Amino acid sequence: MTQQGTLGVAVIGTGMMGADHVRRINDVISGARVAAVVDIDEARAKHVADGVEGARAYTDPAAAMAAPDVDAVLIASPGPAHEAALLTAFEHDLPVLCEKPLTPDPASALRVLEAEQRLGHRRVQVGFMRRYDSEFMKLKSLLAGGELGRPLLLHCRHRNASVHSYFTSDMLITDSVVHEMDQSRWLLEQEITAVTVLRPAPTANAPEGLGDPQLVIFETDGGALVDVEIFVTCGFGYQVQAEAVCERGTARVGDAHGMLINRASGWGGEIAPDFVARFEEAYDREVQAWVNATRRGAVEGPSTWDGYAAAAVSEAGVRAQTTGERTVVEMIERPAFYS
Amino acid sequence: MTQQGTLGVAVIGTGMMGADHVRRINDVISGARVAAVVDIDEARAKHVADGVEGARAYTDPAAAMAAPDVDAVLIASPGPAHEAALLTAFEHDLPVLCEKPLTPDPASALRVLEAEQRLGHRRVQVGFMRRYDSEFMKLKSLLAGGELGRPLLLHCRHRNASVHSYFTSDMLITDSVVHEMDQSRWLLEQEITAVTVLRPAPTANAPEGLGDPQLVIFETDGGALVDVEIFVTCGFGYQVQAEAVCERGTARVGDAHGMLINRASGWGGEIAPDFVARFEEAYDREVQAWVNATRRGAVEGPSTWDGYAAAAVSEAGVRAQTTGERTVVEMIERPAFYS
Amino acid sequence: MTQQGTLGVAVIGTGMMGADHVRRINDVISGARVAAVVDIDEARAKHVADGVEGARAYTDPAAAMAAPDVDAVLIASPGPAHEAALLTAFEHDLPVLCEKPLTPDPASALRVLEAEQRLGHRRVQVGFMRRYDSEFMKLKSLLAGGELGRPLLLHCRHRNASVHSYFTSDMLITDSVVHEMDQSRWLLEQEITAVTVLRPAPTANAPEGLGDPQLVIFETDGGALVDVEIFVTCGFGYQVQAEAVCERGTARVGDAHGMLINRASGWGGEIAPDFVARFEEAYDREVQAWVNATRRGAVEGPSTWDGYAAAAVSEAGVRAQTTGERTVVEMIERPAFYS
Amino acid sequence: MTQQGTLGVAVIGTGMMGADHVRRINDVISGARVAAVVDIDEARAKHVADGVEGARAYTDPAAAMAAPDVDAVLIASPGPAHEAALLTAFEHDLPVLCEKPLTPDPASALRVLEAEQRLGHRRVQVGFMRRYDSEFMKLKSLLAGGELGRPLLLHCRHRNASVHSYFTSDMLITDSVVHEMDQSRWLLEQEITAVTVLRPAPTANAPEGLGDPQLVIFETDGGALVDVEIFVTCGFGYQVQAEAVCERGTARVGDAHGMLINRASGWGGEIAPDFVARFEEAYDREVQAWVNATRRGAVEGPSTWDGYAAAAVSEAGVRAQTTGERTVVEMIERPAFYS
Repeated sequence: MTQQGTLGVAVIGTGMMGADHVRRINDVISGARVAAVVDIDEARAKHVADGVEGARAYTDPAAAMAAPDVDAVLIASPGPAHEAALLTAFEHDLPVLCEKPLTPDPASALRVLEAEQRLGHRRVQVGFMRRYDSEFMKLKSLLAGGELGRPLLLHCRHRNASVHSYFTSDMLITDSVVHEMDQSRWLLEQEITAVTVLRPAPTANAPEGLGDPQLVIFETDGGALVDVEIFVTCGFGYQVQAEAVCERGTARVGDAHGMLINRASGWGGEIAPDFVARFEEAYDREVQAWVNATRRGAVEGPSTWDGYAAAAVSEAGVRAQTTGERTVVEMIERPAFYS
Repeated sequence: MTQQGTLGVAVIGTGMMGADHVRRINDVISGARVAAVVDIDEARAKHVADGVEGARAYTDPAAAMAAPDVDAVLIASPGPAHEAALLTAFEHDLPVLCEKPLTPDPASALRVLEAEQRLGHRRVQVGFMRRYDSEFMKLKSLLAGGELGRPLLLHCRHRNASVHSYFTSDMLITDSVVHEMDQSRWLLEQEITAVTVLRPAPTANAPEGLGDPQLVIFETDGGALVDVEIFVTCGFGYQVQAEAVCERGTARVGDAHGMLINRASGWGGEIAPDFVARFEEAYDREVQAWVNATRRGAVEGPSTWDGYAAAAVSEAGVRAQTTGERTVVEMIERPAFYS
Repeated sequence: MTQQGTLGVAVIGTGMMGADHVRRINDVISGARVAAVVDIDEARAKHVADGVEGARAYTDPAAAMAAPDVDAVLIASPGPAHEAALLTAFEHDLPVLCEKPLTPDPASALRVLEAEQRLGHRRVQVGFMRRYDSEFMKLKSLLAGGELGRPLLLHCRHRNASVHSYFTSDMLITDSVVHEMDQSRWLLEQEITAVTVLRPAPTANAPEGLGDPQLVIFETDGGALVDVEIFVTCGFGYQVQAEAVCERGTARVGDAHGMLINRASGWGGEIAPDFVARFEEAYDREVQAWVNATRRGAVEGPSTWDGYAAAAVSEAGVRAQTTGERTVVEMIERPAFYS
Repeated sequence: MTQQGTLGVAVIGTGMMGADHVRRINDVISGARVAAVVDIDEARAKHVADGVEGARAYTDPAAAMAAPDVDAVLIASPGPAHEAALLTAFEHDLPVLCEKPLTPDPASALRVLEAEQRLGHRRVQVGFMRRYDSEFMKLKSLLAGGELGRPLLLHCRHRNASVHSYFTSDMLITDSVVHEMDQSRWLLEQEITAVTVLRPAPTANAPEGLGDPQLVIFETDGGALVDVEIFVTCGFGYQVQAEAVCERGTARVGDAHGMLINRASGWGGEIAPDFVARFEEAYDREVQAWVNATRRGAVEGPSTWDGYAAAAVSEAGVRAQTTGERTVVEMIERPAFYS
């Protein structure tokens, strides 16, 4: 640790998420500082590092992790680079906050899972930020408290105004619905056992070849059903909603709210433009929670197991989307290490 | 009564309200029919009567009330004509539904009050339709039930999109806030004892000479305070809201609701364009309640006393608006006849 | 027609719905009167008829329909009795309002469909009252107007507080989800082509043998997908909600609203206890619309074809529920007579 | 400044607010650390300081401000101690975040105002945290943008579940409504020129002698009217709401929202229990904004002038409450120094 226990963080990757985390660590949260900025593009790494007092630029993640003022690693590079970065972090026994996905497929996620077990203690928090959203936290707390009884159904909506032209149908599952996979497992405390993907005639507003929207169904080992509307070209903004239907009541989060205006066009309010605006405070809380846990030597939040499970369900989801069939999720049994 | 107990109604006045009531009696409610249509404009009376099977046109209210197939009178003529029509109805001992105002001033209202007492039984229901709105009925029921304790404050909003160019500051009180006078007396079951009118710098959108909006304060003999925002050129639609603040809770009615839309301009819904759209079902319920009570020989709803009280408070309100001073309401004591 | 064009109605069946319609025709709506009350239980028929001026009791529907003062028929007897009553009404060429279901199965519905075609003109309005609910009417109007583009998905919720002990899993489909069948066909203007029923582990609060809740999926010939949560033992009240997801926006109806209370238990409002309270005004509007159309010689609203389609989809739904498989709906082609 | 530009803060006062700010600086926000904890109760100061790495305890504010590792001062002591602490901070030319009130009366506030002007540059941010609430910030932005036109009326609600037995009617104004004074001045960008206090018969739930609730009216130099319901024993929770009524629309903030539950008691959600829960994020944002501005040498947010204005309006408000009369606010002209 640096003086006064401030955590020195190496941020790997300086894309939109990485750059935002650098800003967050520097300007928003408490107890951490950016010690290293890593990007294979040296000019970009330097540019970002120059904006932060005391931060050095690196092109090699391993070099950054070896630096004496680096106490922890935040991985925000593209998914395919995660496995190598995670294994290197394990070599240096550094705590990691790894943006989702843990890795892009179950096989690589399994290798990370095994490496962490060989290390002998948990080191990874996966970046499923919805677990840190104040409304989702209230829903989790309500369900865990048991007042409404056992959850039976979970209705989810996930809408983006638009996507880049390179967005593919696969990404609907692996990039978007992956959030509902983790959210469902976390809220229900059940594993997802099968996935079915139902496809209506797509909207005319989707890029060529993108079957948007879709209705994705999860079955769980506790007998619950989850339905997810994924609609990434809805046009009007970013909305994430969930309603848990339980034996003695239902609870819904994610409705629009806040300032309410009366004007000539009617009554109502604004819809968040994108996930950054919608989940800004969740991201702040997530990184702060990681820093706080790390400073007291703990590992909390979504684990490597959660990252592996999401990868396994994603794989089944992509197959279900391709075949149009109900597809069973293939997963190893949960190791006692992660119980 | 006609065959099958259908009530034969003489509708006096064929302006917007009168014509709407003719349609309502003919097409919407049960147990009544339009027997007579009265207007000083003979062509207009005939035109409206021609659209209704079995209805005859009159120019003289007294002639209509003398007709054998007329069992009841609905007065929807301009306010200054009400006193004469009411006194004539008393002569024929006919039940009356009288659109607000009962009469335009306390002196004439007092004469009607005295005439009805001489008649020896109540004959008049005054057309304060908010008492028949489903949300206001729920608020009334909640307050009367006592769950929330004694009402302490009542916050009221009364907004119109726009008004005719001849609308005057007096009419803000006598035509618009008169509804909040009755609503407050009814909800609180207290008499209004003083009125204060506070005036901000008016909106640029009001017709020349109209001091719009205003904030009108009522004090009651039970110690409650009522504040009324009256804003008749708000531009965006028609809204009537009320929040009762009680010792153990508050209750609010009149918020926008119904269908909720997400679209590029945001989330929200429509605002009613005018009082006809907002209170359509209240008017239906009001006239049906009058017909039902009349058919079983009863008189219910807002009474001549309520009409007189509204006239007395209106007079104080206009004086308060002119002088800028807190103005005490001058009223006779409530006769036992109306208790 | 009777004098003054008042429609004389024979109400067949005096169970909860029938008795409520007698009250409605007598006390609420305009232009009709109850001329005949029919029940196989003579005492019951007499008891109900005695409460209505001018109404006679019958035990035989055919006798009632032959009476000279009967101009129209409202069928509210149990579903298995509908076919005979409808065919008898066709013999007397009487207009009919038939409570849902038209008949309990597609074969009998088809016989009615053919009989009406032989008669040569439409005579039947089926009692799908949601088409007359003010919020659903707004949603229909919005979708028909095209502002939001083509509908892609329709999310439906249908919740009852509780059901009688004799309620079966079949009835979830034929008695409850049948409303969403008509609602979907009407809102989307598409036919349902396949049904899938997904079943979570049931709530502990359902009667033995009742698999509650369920998630029912409709596919349509226009490529839309509909998901219906049916949950008849939710415990907290009666809720019917629908959200249409279109190319350029979504629209939702059926959220709780109305009076909003702040009290020690939190902020919020009441949930309707049952369908009678929730759809009271829709029933009024439905019967009034039928009376008005009938008086001017027209037939409007849900047709015999709509009743047949609901029966065909119901049959597929029950099979889908039993087999757990996606089940194709078997229907004849729509006759030009019903286009 | 300390190493890495971290701001060393002396927190003066360790009551509820002071202790919460120590926690906030230590655990939540970025760029500052607690260097000194000051309380006249030495044991208490030591207890709080012991929980923070690198913090020293003091009983004398002046000694703390003289310490070399103190870069800035957060005053959270009782109001009567503020003047001395502020003047000492000016002697050391230290930036200050001063909890409201600036000082308890206009005369002392004026002395602070003059001292800061003699110092020659602004040094003080006053702790009106509502300016940092996300909903109020949106309202401010909307009003400033001009879309809705000029604000005409501002309706405010301020409700607490309960107060301590020593809470007095004066404190309704100086402790509670003082927030609406600043909020109104900030939102409207106008000065308050007169105050009127209207008092209904008090709730039976208020402590003896406390006239609760009250309706407080502000007039402004721009011609707007503000009405404030202050109700500190409402029983059900903490609510702060504001609706700005403008020439072309209205905007409302502070309605209950977030997670919505359906259960046997109805639909709805939770009400915040107290101001700490309601404004937690606003306090975080306020202190972070102060730290950020201070680190780059700026002074932002509510100024000493705003603190003086609130004291002047409070004094008028207490007089208005006592006399029952409309009371003109006595203020000096705004010095150019604060424009």
